Amino acid sequence: MIKLSKLDLPGISRAAGTISRILGDTSIKAGLPPGTPVHVGERKTEKVTISIVNYDLDGCKFHQTAAPEDCLDYRDQPGVTWVSIDGLHQVDLIEKIGACFKLHPLIIEDICNTTQRPKLDLFEDYLFLVVKMQTYNRESRSIETDQVSLVLGHNFLLSFQEKPSEIFAGVRIRIENGKGRLRSLGPDYLAYALIDAVIDHYFSVLEELGEDIENLEEEVIGRPRRESIEKIHLLKRELILLRKSIWPMREVLNTLLRHDESDLIGSAMAIYLKDLYDHTIQVIDIVEAYRDVTAGLMDIYLSSLSNRMNEIMKVLTMIATIFIPLTFIAGIYGMNFNPDLSPWNMPELNWRWGYPFALALMGAVVVGMLVYFKRKSWL
Amino acid sequence: MIKLSKLDLPGISRAAGTISRILGDTSIKAGLPPGTPVHVGERKTEKVTISIVNYDLDGCKFHQTAAPEDCLDYRDQPGVTWVSIDGLHQVDLIEKIGACFKLHPLIIEDICNTTQRPKLDLFEDYLFLVVKMQTYNRESRSIETDQVSLVLGHNFLLSFQEKPSEIFAGVRIRIENGKGRLRSLGPDYLAYALIDAVIDHYFSVLEELGEDIENLEEEVIGRPRRESIEKIHLLKRELILLRKSIWPMREVLNTLLRHDESDLIGSAMAIYLKDLYDHTIQVIDIVEAYRDVTAGLMDIYLSSLSNRMNEIMKVLTMIATIFIPLTFIAGIYGMNFNPDLSPWNMPELNWRWGYPFALALMGAVVVGMLVYFKRKSWL
Amino acid sequence: MIKLSKLDLPGISRAAGTISRILGDTSIKAGLPPGTPVHVGERKTEKVTISIVNYDLDGCKFHQTAAPEDCLDYRDQPGVTWVSIDGLHQVDLIEKIGACFKLHPLIIEDICNTTQRPKLDLFEDYLFLVVKMQTYNRESRSIETDQVSLVLGHNFLLSFQEKPSEIFAGVRIRIENGKGRLRSLGPDYLAYALIDAVIDHYFSVLEELGEDIENLEEEVIGRPRRESIEKIHLLKRELILLRKSIWPMREVLNTLLRHDESDLIGSAMAIYLKDLYDHTIQVIDIVEAYRDVTAGLMDIYLSSLSNRMNEIMKVLTMIATIFIPLTFIAGIYGMNFNPDLSPWNMPELNWRWGYPFALALMGAVVVGMLVYFKRKSWL
Amino acid sequence: MIKLSKLDLPGISRAAGTISRILGDTSIKAGLPPGTPVHVGERKTEKVTISIVNYDLDGCKFHQTAAPEDCLDYRDQPGVTWVSIDGLHQVDLIEKIGACFKLHPLIIEDICNTTQRPKLDLFEDYLFLVVKMQTYNRESRSIETDQVSLVLGHNFLLSFQEKPSEIFAGVRIRIENGKGRLRSLGPDYLAYALIDAVIDHYFSVLEELGEDIENLEEEVIGRPRRESIEKIHLLKRELILLRKSIWPMREVLNTLLRHDESDLIGSAMAIYLKDLYDHTIQVIDIVEAYRDVTAGLMDIYLSSLSNRMNEIMKVLTMIATIFIPLTFIAGIYGMNFNPDLSPWNMPELNWRWGYPFALALMGAVVVGMLVYFKRKSWL
Amino acid sequence: MIKLSKLDLPGISRAAGTISRILGDTSIKAGLPPGTPVHVGERKTEKVTISIVNYDLDGCKFHQTAAPEDCLDYRDQPGVTWVSIDGLHQVDLIEKIGACFKLHPLIIEDICNTTQRPKLDLFEDYLFLVVKMQTYNRESRSIETDQVSLVLGHNFLLSFQEKPSEIFAGVRIRIENGKGRLRSLGPDYLAYALIDAVIDHYFSVLEELGEDIENLEEEVIGRPRRESIEKIHLLKRELILLRKSIWPMREVLNTLLRHDESDLIGSAMAIYLKDLYDHTIQVIDIVEAYRDVTAGLMDIYLSSLSNRMNEIMKVLTMIATIFIPLTFIAGIYGMNFNPDLSPWNMPELNWRWGYPFALALMGAVVVGMLVYFKRKSWL
Repeated sequence: MIKLSKLDLPGISRAAGTISRILGDTSIKAGLPPGTPVHVGERKTEKVTISIVNYDLDGCKFHQTAAPEDCLDYRDQPGVTWVSIDGLHQVDLIEKIGACFKLHPLIIEDICNTTQRPKLDLFEDYLFLVVKMQTYNRESRSIETDQVSLVLGHNFLLSFQEKPSEIFAGVRIRIENGKGRLRSLGPDYLAYALIDAVIDHYFSVLEELGEDIENLEEEVIGRPRRESIEKIHLLKRELILLRKSIWPMREVLNTLLRHDESDLIGSAMAIYLKDLYDHTIQVIDIVEAYRDVTAGLMDIYLSSLSNRMNEIMKVLTMIATIFIPLTFIAGIYGMNFNPDLSPWNMPELNWRWGYPFALALMGAVVVGMLVYFKRKSWL
Repeated sequence: MIKLSKLDLPGISRAAGTISRILGDTSIKAGLPPGTPVHVGERKTEKVTISIVNYDLDGCKFHQTAAPEDCLDYRDQPGVTWVSIDGLHQVDLIEKIGACFKLHPLIIEDICNTTQRPKLDLFEDYLFLVVKMQTYNRESRSIETDQVSLVLGHNFLLSFQEKPSEIFAGVRIRIENGKGRLRSLGPDYLAYALIDAVIDHYFSVLEELGEDIENLEEEVIGRPRRESIEKIHLLKRELILLRKSIWPMREVLNTLLRHDESDLIGSAMAIYLKDLYDHTIQVIDIVEAYRDVTAGLMDIYLSSLSNRMNEIMKVLTMIATIFIPLTFIAGIYGMNFNPDLSPWNMPELNWRWGYPFALALMGAVVVGMLVYFKRKSWL
Repeated sequence: MIKLSKLDLPGISRAAGTISRILGDTSIKAGLPPGTPVHVGERKTEKVTISIVNYDLDGCKFHQTAAPEDCLDYRDQPGVTWVSIDGLHQVDLIEKIGACFKLHPLIIEDICNTTQRPKLDLFEDYLFLVVKMQTYNRESRSIETDQVSLVLGHNFLLSFQEKPSEIFAGVRIRIENGKGRLRSLGPDYLAYALIDAVIDHYFSVLEELGEDIENLEEEVIGRPRRESIEKIHLLKRELILLRKSIWPMREVLNTLLRHDESDLIGSAMAIYLKDLYDHTIQVIDIVEAYRDVTAGLMDIYLSSLSNRMNEIMKVLTMIATIFIPLTFIAGIYGMNFNPDLSPWNMPELNWRWGYPFALALMGAVVVGMLVYFKRKSWL
Repeated sequence: MIKLSKLDLPGISRAAGTISRILGDTSIKAGLPPGTPVHVGERKTEKVTISIVNYDLDGCKFHQTAAPEDCLDYRDQPGVTWVSIDGLHQVDLIEKIGACFKLHPLIIEDICNTTQRPKLDLFEDYLFLVVKMQTYNRESRSIETDQVSLVLGHNFLLSFQEKPSEIFAGVRIRIENGKGRLRSLGPDYLAYALIDAVIDHYFSVLEELGEDIENLEEEVIGRPRRESIEKIHLLKRELILLRKSIWPMREVLNTLLRHDESDLIGSAMAIYLKDLYDHTIQVIDIVEAYRDVTAGLMDIYLSSLSNRMNEIMKVLTMIATIFIPLTFIAGIYGMNFNPDLSPWNMPELNWRWGYPFALALMGAVVVGMLVYFKRKSWL
Repeated sequence: MIKLSKLDLPGISRAAGTISRILGDTSIKAGLPPGTPVHVGERKTEKVTISIVNYDLDGCKFHQTAAPEDCLDYRDQPGVTWVSIDGLHQVDLIEKIGACFKLHPLIIEDICNTTQRPKLDLFEDYLFLVVKMQTYNRESRSIETDQVSLVLGHNFLLSFQEKPSEIFAGVRIRIENGKGRLRSLGPDYLAYALIDAVIDHYFSVLEELGEDIENLEEEVIGRPRRESIEKIHLLKRELILLRKSIWPMREVLNTLLRHDESDLIGSAMAIYLKDLYDHTIQVIDIVEAYRDVTAGLMDIYLSSLSNRMNEIMKVLTMIATIFIPLTFIAGIYGMNFNPDLSPWNMPELNWRWGYPFALALMGAVVVGMLVYFKRKSWL
């Protein structure tokens, strides 16, 4: 893999292999009974932090803790409570929070396993949602995937992720400022605001990827190199991963849109969910268009290889077809037949103008060849 | 990119890169709270103009203004009011008009963001529709995409776009003339007339693209060049963009056709919407057929590269196979074995007819080769 | 395009370019208000003729006219009236007939526009159907597409087409003879009989195309030529066109089959429509299979190019690898080192058997090479 | 086509061309009124035979005849009557049987036309089913398609086919023996038993084809030849044909499974039909997997061509790059500059060790080249 | 096949041919009456063993036997009874167990036939489920497929498989330990636990395959070899097989999820089934992503072949274009024109600096060529 690490394709690193990125570490769990929570995925934070916000129209309280028991105080409080857990590797802590909000063991298991695909589970008292957050790490120039699990209850929202993200910081600030609709609406709107932030961030990632594609396009058309094919391959891989993250969102949001049995999601949310759905479709559209363009780059690359071969062959053929006859003529007059033995034996050697004649013959061959090449439009 | 700009493919410019055209500038908004109207897209007009037409069977009044407050006067007026806003970059102005007609904040946001895909949102009191208008700029020889947002109320129609378009001029003239069905029918028919004008214009764009494809077809079959592959790539890109604009229209119109809950769209409109739907399908059919043909051009191009290589190789091989043996024969008789030392040493050199014999030998080789090539049908 | 017209691929002419055949002239109409009838398409007949047949179980009357007003007499007559209009370019005439049978303006527009895709519109009092008729012109050896528009009322059937077709002649004869079910059943059966004739004719077209494909298959496998690729391309184009004509028929017939609200189509028709549907699916199946086979031909063609290149390279390599060493040996003994100066300087030149030795050396190289080629199975 | 018939690909003959096998002779009928029975297909039997079996739990009677009138006696008899007609070219005979059992004229037409795709027609009093039977003819080593038409009434089953098949012999024996469920159940179970026999036979055909694919796989990977590509093409064709025969069965059986309006099919049949459906899906799965594998063979074949070319080029390049410099050196010392004229003119020629020096120089070039090739890992 | 067996691709053996693995031995049964149980598949165990577990919240009893009659004792016992049969080749034994639990003959047939695709049959009193278990045999480094048939009744679960598997051992231990939910819930949860174990094991198989893909990726990009193409082919085959096993599971689980008519599956199972469904979709996602990546490897391999060819050609062309002119110059001065005869005949030969001049001329050619190559960026 050393050889590849030298590639400096902006935005695409081979830090992780293709397959491990597609697969994750899902096999860790094979053999365990269902409902056993095990943390699957990369460990990105040292300490687990629990941030609790309780807010209503009149105000909001912030509370940061490491003790899951603190959640209990907020469970039945009026207003909306948002419990945000950063760090999933401490499985017992997650279990305690789950117990506090009476979550099903399978939900706990899914929260800890960060290789889930986006999904939606509907329960009597809460909804469970998994969303994949994609961020573009400018330092390592690679796409990073994080899993955000949301549990939406009547008066609370739990959000779980391995690493605290700046994407959610904006929402927290809006709660603090009390501006916008956030404070006046329920936890369903808060959930919407978080998912909206995640989906909106896909556009940034797509923009970065788009730059890579444009650079690659220019390279492949202008001056294709051996590495181009690897870059195309890596780009394709990133697009496969993006696609895997966003396609299921469509289904998830569609189910939410058509879900009006429970009262967890207010009817006023329909327009917001529809908007989210539209954005998701737009992301999917762009990813698919990128895939089309990237597949096209492959064709261009292959044809440029053929073009280059043609060019090389043309040079070789021209050199060879010009000089081979010349060398043959030189060879003729290099034969050792004795012109003195018989008038038929290479009389040219004894001509006064023999050498100029031979050179003229060669010149004629060259001119003839050039005319031929001209006609073939090889020149 | 300089190298490419020299391409003179009619109808396809690289003014904008592939990816920026697919993506738009959607990422500007990441991080903002949902419902925040921000103008996303190219700024094409200097001043925002608001054109108001109020008409019924008896007559029509035209009114041009820059003050959004003027709309209020028309809101509850009898007859049909068409408010046409050209210029989307003045977000506050759009917001005022929205407030006047009580539009949802997300709608305002969608109107200002010109990277939307075609969509339909159904509300109690109005419908919101986004359509992509494609025009062919003959000067820059490129396809230009404009977003048209329509809000259809019980007695009004709002249309938003960045640049005033000639496509809608015809509709305005028909209102003025009072000919046709326009004056006698409601705002739903007006909305239909506008969308119909947009969809009909796709056919013009397809015709221009079609000419490009035919030219390219001729070039690729007749005299393929290195640039052909880039032209195919650019054509594919345009088709990807067209496809992205028209495919969702199918769904939008299908929803409209099956939508009979509200009374915003009269039952008499069904036949018109069906007609629009049929035209949309026809555009989609043609775009897909173009894609098929363009994909086929790629195959032809690649096979023509192989053909050319075969031709080059054939020339090289013929020259080489004819002259290499000749040169060998000349080399034989250029050896310095002394025929005087022994009767076995190159006795030909001392023959009377040695030189003619060698030339005849060479001639025989040439004839043999030509017969061989003939049999291989290389000649 | 001159170059291509020299191709003599049976059954496929390039009389019309690929794109104009896919697109038609649909753009003529952009800018006109909806419902404006304009003739779009090729003008194939000089004079418009209106043939009226009125029949019931007891007899039938034929009437040929050029005056659309004559239709009025038949509108309310008992029995079934079939009005067949050949020639669509006289738009006002079509409009008069439409007015006589109270057709919607959009229907009139659709009848005149011969670039429609197959479609079905359901009205209170009549059905409107567009079918694409494909005929194989044996003289120009090309496929010709005609549009047949049918309007089915309670006691009448209108059929519109640009050129009188032999395909419908058989139906007329059956009405005249009074044999079969035609005379005893209503206009719905007549409509079925016409569509059945159209669909059945696709099989003839497919048979002609099939012969072309078999010829091409033989050519590509046996003796591929540069033109083969163009023939494959043209074949693909014809199949794209056929596909565009027949695919929508499936949907049209499916809608008809499930349409039992109006009494325009008797319940006894179900079995006939099902039969028509089955035939349509069969045509689609064959077209798709043809597309598969044609796509396969491309692969064979490309691989045959590679094979040919391999063969050329093999000949070149064999000639070169045999003669290059020989020429080298000859070159060695052509060097002018003086064997008389030193015993180490080319003593072979002074050997008694020097020349035979050199020739034997060369013979050994040839034998060695031939053994090598044999082992490589190049011989 | 003579050239191809020499191919000895086991299991795939080119007895019939690709296209005629896909198309059949369907065009014969174009122009005839619907419902006109015409025999379309190959004539495989001389005489038409009608075999009648009447059975119930207590016993069974066999009756073989050539007179269609005999069927009348069995029409209203108690027990189950199975009328099996072998030979479809005597259309009037089929019509008489149809009249006896009151079949619709379109059904008669479909029975005689052996180019149908599998289909199901539901009538009040009977079901009409078309199934394609595939058998592997070991003598001609080709797949043969036969059409089996079944008409299932309340107390009778009619089966029509052109050639008596061994596949149905087993069912007849089971009726005679009275073993199994056949005798105790109605004609619906008999129909099921026949279709089951047909579907089960697909697996035998798939096994034979599978052997061909494995042989081809071995050939293409181990020692690809020019003919391999044709074999792949022929295999693909057979798979297209198989696919066309079995895909529609899925739909047919699905309709039967969901069809519970009539009492022609007892509710106890559901489990049997489900089983049949599962087998059909399994056949489809295998055909699709075969298609995937065959498509992969194409890739391998093409890459093996490239590999072979690389190998040839490598040999050529090595020979050329070794000998061209050597020949050049020999050429140098073959120049006729006179060393006696000036000490600068080829002094080597007068050296004592001139010739050994030249040979050593050549040896050094050879060694250098070999090292270079080693480094390029061409050796 | 001997040649291929030498491949040492980790995890992929050619122990069984591609086709026999896709097809199985399904053709054995053609010709037998439906419902005849015949063992189809590989025989993996010598003796058939029947393991019976009866458990409820209070305890569990284990019983191992070879006599199918023993099942009768457990049929009506309280608690949950799990009968696990290892070994399917003794068909009469399976039939006895089937009779004991009143299974339909077709079910018995399906249990014995191990070439089933995953399926679900719903009966009044029991459900029948077929699942494909995939295990990775580390010794033979190949994927092995086993068929698990489950029959779920009100108080019992039957599981059939040819070979005892370690995958189910964990479930048995959990029953024994009495930990987890297993003991407190019914046979539906037990069935879920078994299927969950099977699906979870797919992730292990995918991980092993993933390693193979990563190794292959590295090989194809870094140092492609002739064998790479075969490895890609074998990988594709394994993925086709995996896909065939898992895709139908999606449908099976979807049917189970929507199946709420019978009381065989408690309503509390919904969440578990949903979880299973999600895992299945995840496996499908990964398999499809693997297929994408593997298809991409093919492209890279082919392009690397072209690259290699380019490189070879470049070397050949450079050597040839440098030395051919040099050899020509040497040939010129090797001609035997007599400079003494005429001042025009090769005067250089008599020059004092003739030889250095010739060498300088050659040097100039070399320098010119190198400059040319530099400009072409071939160096």
